Amino acid sequence: MSEQRLTISPLTAEAFAAFGDVIESEGRAHHPINAGSAQRFDDLASVDVTAAGGCPQISLCRAEPVTLPLPLRLMERHPLSSQAFIPLSATPFLIVVAPAGERLDLGRLRAFRSNGRQGINYRPGTWHHPLLALDHVSDFLIVDRRGEGANCDEIPIAEQNILLEA
Amino acid sequence: MSEQRLTISPLTAEAFAAFGDVIESEGRAHHPINAGSAQRFDDLASVDVTAAGGCPQISLCRAEPVTLPLPLRLMERHPLSSQAFIPLSATPFLIVVAPAGERLDLGRLRAFRSNGRQGINYRPGTWHHPLLALDHVSDFLIVDRRGEGANCDEIPIAEQNILLEA
Repeated sequence: MSEQRLTISPLTAEAFAAFGDVIESEGRAHHPINAGSAQRFDDLASVDVTAAGGCPQISLCRAEPVTLPLPLRLMERHPLSSQAFIPLSATPFLIVVAPAGERLDLGRLRAFRSNGRQGINYRPGTWHHPLLALDHVSDFLIVDRRGEGANCDEIPIAEQNILLEA
Repeated sequence: MSEQRLTISPLTAEAFAAFGDVIESEGRAHHPINAGSAQRFDDLASVDVTAAGGCPQISLCRAEPVTLPLPLRLMERHPLSSQAFIPLSATPFLIVVAPAGERLDLGRLRAFRSNGRQGINYRPGTWHHPLLALDHVSDFLIVDRRGEGANCDEIPIAEQNILLEA
């Protein structure tokens, strides 16, 4: 059986731009608030959650860590909304994505490693693997959509034998 | 000159209910996702940001710590939207609030301490002191509103000589 190996790149806004936003302060514009006692880094993600009467939702998620090499199981997408994950304990995590589109193109998978100070926001329709925490049980904040409508498509990929490796 | 002393209570959902939501996993309902490798704690805050054509916005904020006792300087409110702050490095922080309303009632100030795993979401119009980080320079995620309209009222309170104390 053929095997595809997927290696991991550092997460940068440029490399991730085709898939969504990197939510981070490093290198971003900021302005003082609260009489200068704080700096605000404004509007770091395109939150797109109001299709079909949806509204924004803040949730938490606690994820078990994975170990590498990892056989990838499935990819999913949310056609109606963006979805943001922000790590709450500065723990690195992995992101596996493929371009949005009706068809999942496994030849265009990309894998990234967040440094733990970086969150991500998937654009509506971006194919992505479920959350991949590393090293520790990790908590994440989620900003996505609450509302009616079919907003999660899943495609199993275990049979394609794709191995995510360090 | 008279002086009002304000003491700090632990942050709980019940005590904070008049002002907004506590965003935390402890004691909250959850359900398994990702084939059981993660638990999701859904919909922990009433995000209310679409008045007057507004839309949700994700930002970051880096705040200098304060030391106690602290003379309070001003209170502010966002009449058109909720505003959530979630600590990103598990650092405790303080919250000072007063009930929503055209008039700021300084006799009804309350102060709370987040344990660092708790974020908060101010309901639209809730009067609140600017962010009060403790101990370290602390990063917070903010979920609030982007859009037109006057959405920040500030009232100086330094002359009332209100002292926040441990």
